[in-house]
Amino acid sequence: MDLMEKLAKERRLVNLEIQKTLIGKPDRIYSAARHLCLAGGKMVRPMLCMLSCEAVGGKREDGARTGAAIELMHTFTLIHDDIMDADDMRRGKPSVHKLYGVPTAILAGDLLFSKAFEICDPRAYRILARATSEICEGQELDVSFEKRTEVSEDEYMEMIRKKTGVLLEAATEAGAVVGGGKDEQVEALASFGLSIGLAFQIQDDILGVTADEEKLGKPVGSDIVRGKKNLIAINALASLKEKERKELLNLLSKKGNTDAEISRAIELFHDSGSIDYCKKKAREYIKTSDSSLQEIKDSTARKELRLIADYVVKRDL
Amino acid sequence: MDLMEKLAKERRLVNLEIQKTLIGKPDRIYSAARHLCLAGGKMVRPMLCMLSCEAVGGKREDGARTGAAIELMHTFTLIHDDIMDADDMRRGKPSVHKLYGVPTAILAGDLLFSKAFEICDPRAYRILARATSEICEGQELDVSFEKRTEVSEDEYMEMIRKKTGVLLEAATEAGAVVGGGKDEQVEALASFGLSIGLAFQIQDDILGVTADEEKLGKPVGSDIVRGKKNLIAINALASLKEKERKELLNLLSKKGNTDAEISRAIELFHDSGSIDYCKKKAREYIKTSDSSLQEIKDSTARKELRLIADYVVKRDL
Repeated sequence: MDLMEKLAKERRLVNLEIQKTLIGKPDRIYSAARHLCLAGGKMVRPMLCMLSCEAVGGKREDGARTGAAIELMHTFTLIHDDIMDADDMRRGKPSVHKLYGVPTAILAGDLLFSKAFEICDPRAYRILARATSEICEGQELDVSFEKRTEVSEDEYMEMIRKKTGVLLEAATEAGAVVGGGKDEQVEALASFGLSIGLAFQIQDDILGVTADEEKLGKPVGSDIVRGKKNLIAINALASLKEKERKELLNLLSKKGNTDAEISRAIELFHDSGSIDYCKKKAREYIKTSDSSLQEIKDSTARKELRLIADYVVKRDL
Repeated sequence: MDLMEKLAKERRLVNLEIQKTLIGKPDRIYSAARHLCLAGGKMVRPMLCMLSCEAVGGKREDGARTGAAIELMHTFTLIHDDIMDADDMRRGKPSVHKLYGVPTAILAGDLLFSKAFEICDPRAYRILARATSEICEGQELDVSFEKRTEVSEDEYMEMIRKKTGVLLEAATEAGAVVGGGKDEQVEALASFGLSIGLAFQIQDDILGVTADEEKLGKPVGSDIVRGKKNLIAINALASLKEKERKELLNLLSKKGNTDAEISRAIELFHDSGSIDYCKKKAREYIKTSDSSLQEIKDSTARKELRLIADYVVKRDL
């Protein structure tokens, strides 16, 4: 049975919490806020929160509300990111600003943000607040990298730690806190969340150039068009010979690449061995996450957390 | 001695909290976040929070951090509002999106939002979260009113309750909670804050057409240009004779009014008695706020809260 089916009950529970939370007036802002939340997200973060809650001795249901809060927070960042990146598609559907206009999309994001704090467990609100500050810092870094020709792997890793890692870390940490975990359990699960967060982002970058467009829900190679310095691009620029390096740099700095140009950039990624390099990196982080998990007593929840970690690098969307 | 001088020490304290909070990397997002926070805001909300804290028996300094949180929250809403309204000036300076571009301005707002939750007192975070949800609803209402020809006074009052009232209510409520106030004290101070919040917004609308442009820090009559249905416009449309009513409606629905058209609209506001009507309304809310304050034991803090209430309708900027 696949992971999503296995955790269908948990996802339903979180969905219910979200639906309950996103009812209000005026209709327009609430329907904008619901649009992406209920567009079939994978709900990895809420599942991590619920399972971490149970892994330290709590009931998994007790992590559902805070898990829903983290999903709202995640969705809020996606809505605002799509405005900043002028991305018109998300999860195979028009993005919120495309459907409702920029003003309502900004507001819908803000509303999800405040609703997250309304529903999260009091013991977890500061974890969420700190994570969100770092997400903002990470997004600013990400945008600033687009304008630079050189970004180091360390700089990239720090950027994705903030942009993606900290929210998965917050999900496992908050879950463990809500479950009444001891300090060392909370710490171990936080580390677990952070490691799979890093793997998750690297896998996302890989899928951005290797996945099926329909499954991806947005155009393949959009990071190339935007000149994003993700780990694949950074590694390729560092390992290609001068002629190919210059060619790739040109493709990345050009806006509005043709399909042929996108294909050529992807070819260069493959030739340079960068996609394999990133796959290896992602697997390494999953290995690190496994060590963190070893510090938690074995249980069904721990096994399922392990499955989520595996899913992160094996998923194709 | 004027109120701002009298409470200079309190404002300094809040400023320090804000400065301490808004240090981080990358520089660009933090400098965008600091821009408006340190552009000489009146800090009415933090002062309300500190004085409410003392009025129920706490130390006013203990309300400074949560007061700073509320000021950050307020500033976040201004930055996002300016993007939505395409306002290029605020407090006599270029708005954040004008200086840093829309993406960084959205992020700077989001960062202020999360920082507010990082520094506010744990007992107050839910008060802030609820208020912010209502502010989003209020802003959506405000934007939607621009497209309608008719808005009732009740609809307008509900809009400004959400858009402006609830944050002043949150300031006094949170201050009272942090000061360890009893339920009835918290409630009385919350009502006090809400009433002066309503008066504050009505006074803002009045100043938007009567104030000196330099003091205002933005063009006089910008609400007219945008076709905002504020209380002055609503009352004028309800009381003018048919010919003048039509003339005003035309002026309000037209975008990009000339200076002569703005002057004519303001003349119609005066002729209809709407500006006097709004001044009376604002004073009534200040009177209501006074009744709420009577339920609190007399003290220096209560006297100063009274002074803030008076200031709200007497200020000229």
